[in-house]
Amino acid sequence: MRAVDLIEAKRDGRELSASEIRWLIGEYVAGRVPDYQMAAFLMAVYFRGMSEDETVALTRAMAESGERIDLSGIPGIKVDKHSTGGVGDTVTLVLVPLLAAAGLVVAKLSGRSLGHTGGTIDKFEAIPGLRTELSLDEIRAQAQAIGAVIADHTADLVPADRLLYELRDVTATVPSLPLIASSVLSKKLAGGADAIVLDVKCGDGAFMREEAAARQLAETLVRVGNKLGKKFSALITAMDEPLGTRAGNALEVVQAIEVLRGEGPADLREVTVALGAELLVLAGQVASPAVGRERLAGLISSGQAWALFRKLVAAQGGDVRAIEEPRRLPTAGQVVAVPAPASGYVTELRARPIGVACGLLGAGREVKGERVDPAAGVELLAKVGDEVEEGEPVARLHVGRPDRVAAARELVSGAYTIGVERPAPRPFILGRVAP
Amino acid sequence: MRAVDLIEAKRDGRELSASEIRWLIGEYVAGRVPDYQMAAFLMAVYFRGMSEDETVALTRAMAESGERIDLSGIPGIKVDKHSTGGVGDTVTLVLVPLLAAAGLVVAKLSGRSLGHTGGTIDKFEAIPGLRTELSLDEIRAQAQAIGAVIADHTADLVPADRLLYELRDVTATVPSLPLIASSVLSKKLAGGADAIVLDVKCGDGAFMREEAAARQLAETLVRVGNKLGKKFSALITAMDEPLGTRAGNALEVVQAIEVLRGEGPADLREVTVALGAELLVLAGQVASPAVGRERLAGLISSGQAWALFRKLVAAQGGDVRAIEEPRRLPTAGQVVAVPAPASGYVTELRARPIGVACGLLGAGREVKGERVDPAAGVELLAKVGDEVEEGEPVARLHVGRPDRVAAARELVSGAYTIGVERPAPRPFILGRVAP
Repeated sequence: MRAVDLIEAKRDGRELSASEIRWLIGEYVAGRVPDYQMAAFLMAVYFRGMSEDETVALTRAMAESGERIDLSGIPGIKVDKHSTGGVGDTVTLVLVPLLAAAGLVVAKLSGRSLGHTGGTIDKFEAIPGLRTELSLDEIRAQAQAIGAVIADHTADLVPADRLLYELRDVTATVPSLPLIASSVLSKKLAGGADAIVLDVKCGDGAFMREEAAARQLAETLVRVGNKLGKKFSALITAMDEPLGTRAGNALEVVQAIEVLRGEGPADLREVTVALGAELLVLAGQVASPAVGRERLAGLISSGQAWALFRKLVAAQGGDVRAIEEPRRLPTAGQVVAVPAPASGYVTELRARPIGVACGLLGAGREVKGERVDPAAGVELLAKVGDEVEEGEPVARLHVGRPDRVAAARELVSGAYTIGVERPAPRPFILGRVAP
Repeated sequence: MRAVDLIEAKRDGRELSASEIRWLIGEYVAGRVPDYQMAAFLMAVYFRGMSEDETVALTRAMAESGERIDLSGIPGIKVDKHSTGGVGDTVTLVLVPLLAAAGLVVAKLSGRSLGHTGGTIDKFEAIPGLRTELSLDEIRAQAQAIGAVIADHTADLVPADRLLYELRDVTATVPSLPLIASSVLSKKLAGGADAIVLDVKCGDGAFMREEAAARQLAETLVRVGNKLGKKFSALITAMDEPLGTRAGNALEVVQAIEVLRGEGPADLREVTVALGAELLVLAGQVASPAVGRERLAGLISSGQAWALFRKLVAAQGGDVRAIEEPRRLPTAGQVVAVPAPASGYVTELRARPIGVACGLLGAGREVKGERVDPAAGVELLAKVGDEVEEGEPVARLHVGRPDRVAAARELVSGAYTIGVERPAPRPFILGRVAP
């Protein structure tokens, strides 16, 4: 087999066989197919797409490129979730202990990706002492012991995805449905769960800005995912304004604690519970999402979810006092209020500039390996539908980089649109794709 | 500027500016844009194409990537030709001395490309002692002294083309009109001529098999070429059967000598003279191609073209006795006749298998740096329209690699189609594209 022939086949719209795709990925990961051939192949995929069978084969080949987590020895149903990413996306920190409290097993692997706000791992590590770089053995042991883990992606898992993603990033081949799907699904396949829920974010602060594109992605993921022998379902959730009222690292831990204690913002709580309910359905524990939501709400109000979060933090070496008394979490030396630019109702609050402001304040990372500021971020005092008065604060900046306060304030202020009429409430959950 | 943004722009069908293209090529040749980004860019060009302005800019940027031959100090009009390549394409060896005899200056750079038959340089070097690796100073001096040079491409000329071609070859991005055009034209631009004729071959033995595609290429080349400030015209010539009756290296030198002496096959003579006539028109020496053809025919029959060929061979150190008595040229130790498979008329003689047979017999090169056999090749005793008798020889194999005789004979025999009716004569020249 020659890589150039496979590139030509894809260029000309011919369908590749599973063994051709397996060969290409295997040779690429082994360094025998060079980046330039893979780059040409990826661009041909961008233009020609991939059939569902090709996408399944690509996903399998990627999942098989490295180590896989074997959770089969652990009793109970193993579940996982994936989010396509948004601003103030605190869902994982709430959902993992909540699902474990429901008797499911969640070994969640997350990243420290580049971006304006940190990844879940950065957020979780805002808790003093907490360790996320666990070995595969540690992950398995903790999953067995308490049913919940939030660990850093190990480099040995799905190396093909890491290599391909880095290449796609610099060759303008990121926005390709089969490439996105295989990237997401290969990691889930290697993660060892039986059932997976996908949170496909849609709106200004998401990768997918249009609902039609988000739905197409969700449908592709669920369809291909189920062909891979796992149970998948997806929710399409709104990411026009940030989810919740805090974006940052420690700020989102505080918010997760609020939700786990039965408080916190309704949107974050509703989205988290709805995603969890999908997993209860997939796991066969409840007959409908509605029953699932009720059961999960009960686990929050009973304190069981909160108890499990404390166990989770303790298991990973975190300071439990810091979550019991969140003032012990890292706090910013400077907090700056952003005044409302006018009086009226917030009719729009764009997530993207809020995310960029978080980055400016120090919450994210611009280059690989950079340290994030755990205390930095943005607190939103007013969200869409709220009434505000000109000059009164609508947000607070938690400043890690004082030299960028002016730019961040500008962005946050500009993210708000104030109108004279109260906007109609919009749903947090836009759609559901079940197998 | 960032390469990824230019890839994205091309991917999305946005037109790139001349300065963006210049930057990309410059950075690529300098090694600061890696192959994988260029490969993705080339595949995006394959799908999106390039506007004429983009193609002009790409051609200029490539031509400017290395040294250029400056012939401006030499009196007279400097001309050049380019062929898209075929089987038995002896044209250059005849045309260069013919044009010099007409008072034009031709410094022809040619290649030793991979392929079934050798390049012009390989053919010319079949003359004992002949040297083609000339320095830029030697090329200029010889052009000034006798008006004719046939030299090897120096590595310093258009390095961007060499790099891009090697990359296109392994990334399935060869068949892209703007990439083909910029490759051809950048070398002509760097070659220093004022007027250039293009021989766009069309048919079984050519890169372009369909006349519509050949015409599109010819029109693109002439239009873009003339935008570059040079005079270009093109002929579309037939390459269904091989041009002439001999394909190989020394075999083609013999054939060139025949034509220069007023003998040789009509198709090769007609195509060569027609290409030359285009240059006389472009150079302003004659008012029409017809007058040009007549003038060139006169230079052959008067012996002036032949005299110039001897001067050319002598200037480059070749043994003039070997062209005066062609039996002194390298000859094969074994010559094998190929019998006609049936009696009747040759209705088709496919060029491609003849070319492949030449390669099997040792006339071409399969890997870079391989030595070609100067004596190997195929002699065609019957061409389309000729009457043949079953069992009588239609071709002779000049064998450099005895182990491959059977396969070569099979190919050559299979290239012939014998029918009962004499086919209608077909034109050698299919079309003309003048500015």
